[in-house]
Amino acid sequence: MMEKIDSHKVFVEPFHVDFTGRIFMGVLGNHLLNAAGNHSSRRGWGIGALNETRHTWVLSRLSVEMTEMPRQNEHIEIRTWVESVMKLFTNRNFSIHRADGTPLGYARSVWAMIDIETRRPCDLLSLYNGDILNYVVSEEENVCPIEGHGRFRFRDPELVRTIDVRYSDIDINRHVNSIKYMEHILDLFSCEELERGLHRLEIAYKAESRMGDTLSFFVQRGEGGETDVEVKRNGEDTVCQARVIFNE
Amino acid sequence: MMEKIDSHKVFVEPFHVDFTGRIFMGVLGNHLLNAAGNHSSRRGWGIGALNETRHTWVLSRLSVEMTEMPRQNEHIEIRTWVESVMKLFTNRNFSIHRADGTPLGYARSVWAMIDIETRRPCDLLSLYNGDILNYVVSEEENVCPIEGHGRFRFRDPELVRTIDVRYSDIDINRHVNSIKYMEHILDLFSCEELERGLHRLEIAYKAESRMGDTLSFFVQRGEGGETDVEVKRNGEDTVCQARVIFNE
Repeated sequence: MMEKIDSHKVFVEPFHVDFTGRIFMGVLGNHLLNAAGNHSSRRGWGIGALNETRHTWVLSRLSVEMTEMPRQNEHIEIRTWVESVMKLFTNRNFSIHRADGTPLGYARSVWAMIDIETRRPCDLLSLYNGDILNYVVSEEENVCPIEGHGRFRFRDPELVRTIDVRYSDIDINRHVNSIKYMEHILDLFSCEELERGLHRLEIAYKAESRMGDTLSFFVQRGEGGETDVEVKRNGEDTVCQARVIFNE
Repeated sequence: MMEKIDSHKVFVEPFHVDFTGRIFMGVLGNHLLNAAGNHSSRRGWGIGALNETRHTWVLSRLSVEMTEMPRQNEHIEIRTWVESVMKLFTNRNFSIHRADGTPLGYARSVWAMIDIETRRPCDLLSLYNGDILNYVVSEEENVCPIEGHGRFRFRDPELVRTIDVRYSDIDINRHVNSIKYMEHILDLFSCEELERGLHRLEIAYKAESRMGDTLSFFVQRGEGGETDVEVKRNGEDTVCQARVIFNE
């Protein structure tokens, strides 16, 4: 049987870093999603195979916590594995390493599988006769030493920006791409905060938005240095919620 | 001596395509810039080497014309070479191919070299004792069958959008990244046009913009199906000009 943990090598391209020379979180997030996609595909339950049965993976939560952000021209390695599988969700973890193996950070993610037609969740335990269970790597076998996903409690957050969804936001499914929310959220912060560098980004995806929708960004500063952001579609439904923590 | 033409292999990633499944022009443009950077670096006149002498390359013009845009999960090849070198500018061409070698499109670009301190142009013919001249591939040796860069004539174009420069627009030089202008320009068009797909994008970079600047986008529809866009900084200086032509 195939190894349970995949290794995905990435080069940090010149134009993929921010003004401090560190990789954009959106670019890193995209690499994590690619690593996840490859890991699933190589084992037969990637988007391509699922499309044939009219199912697809949907990202529900992503939390990335970095000791250090990779820098321009670095070669990095992303390792990814399935930590656990429940009926409706699977937890997938990541570790991000320098070329010499030093860990730079970790990520946790939660995924559901949905029926493309009905958009309703499917039973992961019966996916290809439970094949995914063969690849579970428990917390004891491979630790992911960052906190799990927190809960958001918004009390009267401040509306700081409203944008129209545009062409470059939209992916092949005609929804705003998960990564684009991260970019728009980080665009809300000051140069001083961004200069310190991102320590942790946690994001919960709640609903889809499409071309023509309006996205409103509400910000709430926390007491522990964290900033919570809620994104609403057309002034009503919550599309996603995020927590951003910069380095001290 | 090293070959004159480089080959740069690229995989069209899942999240790097637009709602039609074709690669975003910004992503393709980024691959072209990487191919150019690698070609220069491998021959000793890349950004890294130039930095030591306090010089850097500056992109002045880029024109990309595609018969067909690469699609999701395609493996493509970008070939690049120096077509000519003058005192203050060099012309670099590109061809974009499917994995089987079929050409999908071509690009032309113009670059200057500047002194990092004075921001003034330098004499390319004396760069490393004229070494760049050893790599010129004439139009007769390797044809680039697309039109050269045109001239822009704006007569009372319409202001259609104004944005503030934000974190995700800025690169390590603290300027708006060349690719980001392309993305903002293409975001001005309608779904109907974007659905037809891009045939040609021509862009002329005139000045830099920074965090905190405001960018205004002025649009002028031409009689031959082309749309010209002028981008101004803080309502005054022209930052870049572009011509966009969609497939019929």
